[in-house]
Amino acid sequence: VPGFFDGWPVAEPSQRNGFAHNRINRQSEQRSADVLDRALADPAARFYLFAGDKALVRPAVEPPDPLFTLTEAEALGADRAAIVLLGWNDAAPRLAVFVGADADLEPLAIEARDLRGLVNQAVLQPPDLGALAQARSLLFWHDRHGFCARCGAATVIVEGGVRRDCPACGTQHFPRTDPVVIMLAIDGDNCLLGRSQRFASGWYSCLAGFVEPGETFEAAVRREIGEEAGIRIGRVRYHASQPWPFPSMLMIGCHAEAVSRDIVIDRTELEDARWFPRDEVRQMLARTHPDGLATPPPFAIASELMRSWVEAGAG
Amino acid sequence: VPGFFDGWPVAEPSQRNGFAHNRINRQSEQRSADVLDRALADPAARFYLFAGDKALVRPAVEPPDPLFTLTEAEALGADRAAIVLLGWNDAAPRLAVFVGADADLEPLAIEARDLRGLVNQAVLQPPDLGALAQARSLLFWHDRHGFCARCGAATVIVEGGVRRDCPACGTQHFPRTDPVVIMLAIDGDNCLLGRSQRFASGWYSCLAGFVEPGETFEAAVRREIGEEAGIRIGRVRYHASQPWPFPSMLMIGCHAEAVSRDIVIDRTELEDARWFPRDEVRQMLARTHPDGLATPPPFAIASELMRSWVEAGAG
Repeated sequence: VPGFFDGWPVAEPSQRNGFAHNRINRQSEQRSADVLDRALADPAARFYLFAGDKALVRPAVEPPDPLFTLTEAEALGADRAAIVLLGWNDAAPRLAVFVGADADLEPLAIEARDLRGLVNQAVLQPPDLGALAQARSLLFWHDRHGFCARCGAATVIVEGGVRRDCPACGTQHFPRTDPVVIMLAIDGDNCLLGRSQRFASGWYSCLAGFVEPGETFEAAVRREIGEEAGIRIGRVRYHASQPWPFPSMLMIGCHAEAVSRDIVIDRTELEDARWFPRDEVRQMLARTHPDGLATPPPFAIASELMRSWVEAGAG
Repeated sequence: VPGFFDGWPVAEPSQRNGFAHNRINRQSEQRSADVLDRALADPAARFYLFAGDKALVRPAVEPPDPLFTLTEAEALGADRAAIVLLGWNDAAPRLAVFVGADADLEPLAIEARDLRGLVNQAVLQPPDLGALAQARSLLFWHDRHGFCARCGAATVIVEGGVRRDCPACGTQHFPRTDPVVIMLAIDGDNCLLGRSQRFASGWYSCLAGFVEPGETFEAAVRREIGEEAGIRIGRVRYHASQPWPFPSMLMIGCHAEAVSRDIVIDRTELEDARWFPRDEVRQMLARTHPDGLATPPPFAIASELMRSWVEAGAG
């Protein structure tokens, strides 16, 4: 008797994406009012620290260490009122906070590193990269949501940061996660790639855009490809998802069946878009393209969407 | 040569869910500053109207009509400053706004109806139900986001409601869509269903929960089932998505392979959870269960997740 899950991999493709291996136990719905105080009093508590956009690491230890104590966080100017409790790693509390703008890292052999660089170079363990993605999204959300969108009053962080409450009108505010579709449109042995002005020289990638209120994500895929490249889409197939903490996206990766061929580029979104044959995409993924064209790095879901199509072989 | 999309249906399962057939052309990224004024001046402009939670319809006309003119909207006390431009149906502007709290509908043969009831009874055309879902999400978001979360100042609606801008600090605020995983855990010929205190008597449904920052949605599926029912999950398979405008969710429906059997119910979330054999779920879907147990109605993605598993036959 064939099983319902026959043919599906034990580890879904999402697990090949960067930031996908968070092992923090969040306990978001089981937290008490004093959960943060108790976590801070635990000698096993450790912090992921951010200097603005960048995560702090000790690159000289082996393996490089992204975890710090409360004492270290406060010595670097962290604001105790802005601490977020991510959850627990086994029983050990894991927290996150920004350090002060003038923190002097160099004498401490600490470096502030971009998260994309950390995941690209595989400097840290996958669970730490996952936790840093969660930390970055939450810290940026709290930093930008100190006031009540409903009434304008200052809000307070509660239960270690799972929520902000408005003392004036009582509204509860939850961190937001923005769903974004990212998709590879396919026409036989060719796929549609585009580049925006923001991209590194020679890069081409999948098209992408925010899911809008009132859409399925297959509908969002069709709409975005239509708007940005004028291509009509038939079937849409979900492939993998990825948390993308810049600042707080949920990337929803799909393959899409193109049913038209003539590209009409939306120049406000894209600098170029064109069809690439499978062999050329293979070279771009491998960084062996004769003209130096390339895809985003392997940790990005765009790369996984291209790689899985290239490896599937037949068009 | 087998094709990359072989075996996939032309219409994805998402299209079987209620609210999935929105045909509004939003043009969210191509709007000018005066887009709303121009839309209001168009004699083809029509409004979806809400009295609080409920959509207005003229039930006596055939087919029942959910569209109104600007004159009608203003006669019912609509606030011109709160109008949202959904987009266009062909070239005709489609807008949405709340009517006044004391609007007297009965003399006009207009009824205020819950969206779930409208979609359940298939009173309206599917594109109107999709547009009403978009309208409800956007109207509720604007109604609850009149102030800047970053600085507390009053914000202004721009470009027909695709954004709110803060004149004080310059931050742009976009309507939010909250991704929610909803999943049917399967163990051979049995599936896991639960009921919350809020459910109608006798109802059992799939478990569900918000995707948190820093998660893939397969990880969110595993976490939620673990938290709510103590069941461990192996493979996770995406099935369909659904916009759910209460107020603004994107439901991400998955099947999940249970790899443990003993349920531990989180009583803060669920009143009951248990394993149901396939034959019993078939009866619940058909409303023929001997004890009167039932699933949510067919327009809800929970029902589609159960129906597709029941019809797949083998466990």
